[in-house]
Amino acid sequence: MSMNNLGIVKRNIVRADRQAVEKLSRFGVATIHEAMGRVGLMHPYMRPIYADAQLCGTAVTVLLQPGDNWMMHVAAEQLQEGDVVVAACTVDNTDGFFGDLLATSYRARGAKGLIIDGGVRDVKDLTAMKFPVFSRAISARGTVKATLGSVNIPVVCAGALVNPGDVIVADPDGVVVVPAAVAQQAADAAAAREANEDDKRQKLAKGELGLDMYKMREPLAKAGLKYID
Amino acid sequence: MSMNNLGIVKRNIVRADRQAVEKLSRFGVATIHEAMGRVGLMHPYMRPIYADAQLCGTAVTVLLQPGDNWMMHVAAEQLQEGDVVVAACTVDNTDGFFGDLLATSYRARGAKGLIIDGGVRDVKDLTAMKFPVFSRAISARGTVKATLGSVNIPVVCAGALVNPGDVIVADPDGVVVVPAAVAQQAADAAAAREANEDDKRQKLAKGELGLDMYKMREPLAKAGLKYID
Amino acid sequence: MSMNNLGIVKRNIVRADRQAVEKLSRFGVATIHEAMGRVGLMHPYMRPIYADAQLCGTAVTVLLQPGDNWMMHVAAEQLQEGDVVVAACTVDNTDGFFGDLLATSYRARGAKGLIIDGGVRDVKDLTAMKFPVFSRAISARGTVKATLGSVNIPVVCAGALVNPGDVIVADPDGVVVVPAAVAQQAADAAAAREANEDDKRQKLAKGELGLDMYKMREPLAKAGLKYID
Amino acid sequence: MSMNNLGIVKRNIVRADRQAVEKLSRFGVATIHEAMGRVGLMHPYMRPIYADAQLCGTAVTVLLQPGDNWMMHVAAEQLQEGDVVVAACTVDNTDGFFGDLLATSYRARGAKGLIIDGGVRDVKDLTAMKFPVFSRAISARGTVKATLGSVNIPVVCAGALVNPGDVIVADPDGVVVVPAAVAQQAADAAAAREANEDDKRQKLAKGELGLDMYKMREPLAKAGLKYID
Amino acid sequence: MSMNNLGIVKRNIVRADRQAVEKLSRFGVATIHEAMGRVGLMHPYMRPIYADAQLCGTAVTVLLQPGDNWMMHVAAEQLQEGDVVVAACTVDNTDGFFGDLLATSYRARGAKGLIIDGGVRDVKDLTAMKFPVFSRAISARGTVKATLGSVNIPVVCAGALVNPGDVIVADPDGVVVVPAAVAQQAADAAAAREANEDDKRQKLAKGELGLDMYKMREPLAKAGLKYID
Amino acid sequence: MSMNNLGIVKRNIVRADRQAVEKLSRFGVATIHEAMGRVGLMHPYMRPIYADAQLCGTAVTVLLQPGDNWMMHVAAEQLQEGDVVVAACTVDNTDGFFGDLLATSYRARGAKGLIIDGGVRDVKDLTAMKFPVFSRAISARGTVKATLGSVNIPVVCAGALVNPGDVIVADPDGVVVVPAAVAQQAADAAAAREANEDDKRQKLAKGELGLDMYKMREPLAKAGLKYID
Repeated sequence: MSMNNLGIVKRNIVRADRQAVEKLSRFGVATIHEAMGRVGLMHPYMRPIYADAQLCGTAVTVLLQPGDNWMMHVAAEQLQEGDVVVAACTVDNTDGFFGDLLATSYRARGAKGLIIDGGVRDVKDLTAMKFPVFSRAISARGTVKATLGSVNIPVVCAGALVNPGDVIVADPDGVVVVPAAVAQQAADAAAAREANEDDKRQKLAKGELGLDMYKMREPLAKAGLKYID
Repeated sequence: MSMNNLGIVKRNIVRADRQAVEKLSRFGVATIHEAMGRVGLMHPYMRPIYADAQLCGTAVTVLLQPGDNWMMHVAAEQLQEGDVVVAACTVDNTDGFFGDLLATSYRARGAKGLIIDGGVRDVKDLTAMKFPVFSRAISARGTVKATLGSVNIPVVCAGALVNPGDVIVADPDGVVVVPAAVAQQAADAAAAREANEDDKRQKLAKGELGLDMYKMREPLAKAGLKYID
Repeated sequence: MSMNNLGIVKRNIVRADRQAVEKLSRFGVATIHEAMGRVGLMHPYMRPIYADAQLCGTAVTVLLQPGDNWMMHVAAEQLQEGDVVVAACTVDNTDGFFGDLLATSYRARGAKGLIIDGGVRDVKDLTAMKFPVFSRAISARGTVKATLGSVNIPVVCAGALVNPGDVIVADPDGVVVVPAAVAQQAADAAAAREANEDDKRQKLAKGELGLDMYKMREPLAKAGLKYID
Repeated sequence: MSMNNLGIVKRNIVRADRQAVEKLSRFGVATIHEAMGRVGLMHPYMRPIYADAQLCGTAVTVLLQPGDNWMMHVAAEQLQEGDVVVAACTVDNTDGFFGDLLATSYRARGAKGLIIDGGVRDVKDLTAMKFPVFSRAISARGTVKATLGSVNIPVVCAGALVNPGDVIVADPDGVVVVPAAVAQQAADAAAAREANEDDKRQKLAKGELGLDMYKMREPLAKAGLKYID
Repeated sequence: MSMNNLGIVKRNIVRADRQAVEKLSRFGVATIHEAMGRVGLMHPYMRPIYADAQLCGTAVTVLLQPGDNWMMHVAAEQLQEGDVVVAACTVDNTDGFFGDLLATSYRARGAKGLIIDGGVRDVKDLTAMKFPVFSRAISARGTVKATLGSVNIPVVCAGALVNPGDVIVADPDGVVVVPAAVAQQAADAAAAREANEDDKRQKLAKGELGLDMYKMREPLAKAGLKYID
Repeated sequence: MSMNNLGIVKRNIVRADRQAVEKLSRFGVATIHEAMGRVGLMHPYMRPIYADAQLCGTAVTVLLQPGDNWMMHVAAEQLQEGDVVVAACTVDNTDGFFGDLLATSYRARGAKGLIIDGGVRDVKDLTAMKFPVFSRAISARGTVKATLGSVNIPVVCAGALVNPGDVIVADPDGVVVVPAAVAQQAADAAAAREANEDDKRQKLAKGELGLDMYKMREPLAKAGLKYID
């Protein structure tokens, strides 16, 4: 038994149900995060490299060593249509692990985009390609190919635990992880949550107050809120 | 006498003079900040959620508890045409206190936008609505409605003291607070400052040096500046 | 002999070869950084003030005192066609040392843009002018003109050593410094590096794996990579 | 009417009641902060320069300009027995505004210590003198005496509003501001809070659970807590 | 099936073998981390609250909500002799979740100390008690008891995945997590690693170079190292 | 001509005059920094690993690659009595590049201590040895020995340019670099500066104000300072 998970590529992973993924792709990150009971969100330092980037897919995970993108190439072979690469690093690092060549390769293999707790480069090209990336940093600093990490092991990426096959949804509000086993449930909950929002929006647009719509006046008074002049 | 200001909503506040606000709205944050003698600027970590966001209005202040946006709903009722909500938090927090539903409500009540020392979400929708927000963070993480803060008490937001009724001006350069009592004076000073900038710009565009235009050569020499070859 | 380099303006500096600069301007920062053997990159906190900013030119260096932009005016006189101002500060500072008036002046003197380890303001105007700036911060806070720094001495800007006359290349991936003496060599190496990228891109686009194209399988196996199911 | 508060020294300030201050000095910052309803705490980046530093006294406030400690000298004259200097800065700055000479002067004038949202130096000497300082940073970088700030105006220090005369209590847990008007009330509340802690401590030391002592089991069950095996 | 792990207390957990824990307690964090192949280390922002704090024990995990320490009390009941409480939070938060009363209770229940990705207070008392705590922050800010988290679920603490029952070793160099299943193996590897260090230390103390002792000269020359005069 | 300085060890360096170094060792960092005209200070994030660490010596510089301490061993051979190792890294990195074995080796070779813009470990042992280290971080994370950096080339360490042979002085106030060529001059200036401090200290201790001692009243009045009641 190995004491660590380094140097491993797991080939067969159980991906979340395709229909559940498709359904989740219709909702925003904020809605899904709420629907799940407010878990699974990555740290807010993860930002899209262009303003309207968004993606939804199943995770192929990568554990990187700092300044080394060898495993990003190894991961390419494990990609299937609809996957999202989720790359964590064994230590805080902002080097540019990923650029337009890898993006070309990933797209050719069917990948929907990249989530990386590190840096990326060739941002101009990636933007022109409309290849969505959410990253901790942008950096021109390149990497070597010298030390083993792993592919498709559980990783901690930007504070969130990601298992291979989990659903990853990302938009300008952030990145959320939906465990494969609850993907359908989360999609249903998100749909339910969104259903009655339109009605609320119209009422609020007419000037109705949330105080009344959500019946907050009584609990606020009970909590001791005082109005003074 | 209470030891803290929690659980209070002040209904009647003295807003800055409407004409002074209108006049201030014509100037950039940098110009106003200079005109006031370089005070009242919030920390530079406050950034617009879209590139060309800007606003000018009178402050309705909110003191939030971390992870709790109850008071954001209470504030809605206190809004008048031309107000800007300024939300501070009792502790550093990046949760998403505000989204498109609240924005719809605030706009319906006449609000010009939001300044928040915390996080916001639904950024895609807020951008589509052109609802200007300047925030410390963007985060999909939602909030609860459980603990009292206050509305329309003096707050410290991103390092600046804001009293209800003060004028808030924000553009991509930052967020500046103009105390209600000096709004007209600040507007006049900003106007005076801007008046002769066009002339300067034309001279500089022709290649004239600031060294000569501002008569800096003598003071520089006096301070000991040496030119070497 | 002075113990420090403050209060000095060096007038005659040796700029990098013009043709080498022109050649370098055709390549991205990531490519040049790689071609040079991964040195000379500024910290990734240096960001463009608008999304597609880029520049290439020869450095006129400025050493600023915190909250004081006097030397920015002194530097204007030293500018020649094709220069880039590189401004460092004696201490971490995010004040707005630079705005649209200085940009007008710099452009009139032939400058290509600004790299500043500090803050800038008038971002809206600078963007409209398409004057490229890469900075540590955006801040409306103005500065005084009271204390001497220097112009055209070696400076440390965002962690990189810059000598006057060095080539500065910046794009959304970051800012790289190419010493004047190796500008031609770096340009040639960048060209060589880029030459065969198109071929690689096409192969990857067809689905060929980097694992095969770069012949990584053997070294990975040798390093101990294990595939499991 | 001035648009800013710069260049002002207020000589007569109303200090908190001496007996209330003395009573507050018996309690820790955490206790006082709780007793006041959790307001008035400075940001946790404010740290003591030596491990067991602590102080309690009435605030003489200083507003500094970055890199300039002129006002620290002006403040010395305003000190009375039992005062604490609270220094804020118009912009984030870590320069060493204060050292052993100023400490000698402040102590001679009766000051109990210093709270500064900036840097200090001569830490070895200050430690030997047992002069308590809570600061944002330690830095050898000296300052000039060139630009006016103010003394005894309201300031925002490390996120907390401080009025001259307020009580400042600091210990390794942080720095808390008690408004002068509620000093006695806060002291009484702190005393009440601490009174029954000894009893609790003894029960807990014997192995009694907080779950039982604070009767948490029912509310936890009601909130939905589930025990599984 | 629940979509999240909130509101759960797992009572029966499998703790690492007691003898393996005891053996691990003899080694430093750096040694264990090396012995395991450089995995399992928490972020270096985790610091001891007093200079010589150290601990070794089995993890009882806690997932906290920001500003809420209810679960810290729930965890107390789950403690056994030799446990270490490892507290993570659903969002970055520096509030003071833990103080001397909880420490008294935890110690009475047999706990060895606390690892918390949040803040603690009563640092003076905790130091006097010699109760070791490694935390992200020190803060007097208290917390409420209102929202459910969980006890003894897998948590991500300061970037490291911790399962209940894992061994936690902490000293001034940091905090490392040893999975329960490999505790004995890690202890043996650490012992092996340390065995020959004394010999090396003596040789180095006599002036022998690591270059020779580790036979680095050849690989350095092969990598291209050049000595110049 | 190489485009970068990697893979080089310079054996013969010109160390600052031994007597000047000895004289500088009598003064604090703040005094020397002032005496030099406020240049040469490293960023304040450089902190001693134990409270009363201090050192003074001549720099042997090291350029490290992230996560790789190979060059630390190469540097050992270049050490002479009275040297201080100054280690910079090509990228921000907090790994533990240095521990007690290297300290033993360095001390045996005559080194006075270490300045490193990275992490160190074995802090407990280093403290027991009283081997002074000033670092950016403390981290148990070990490093590999795989990639070349350099020894005794000019480096940028924590924002300061260091040439081999320069004098490095460090104490709890920070780390300052004195170029070898001005070491004697700086030592003399520091001595002059300190000479009359005792006199000032005594006057201040008796209650004399800096306002009077430094004759500040007139310039303050001239600058517009107003006293109000």
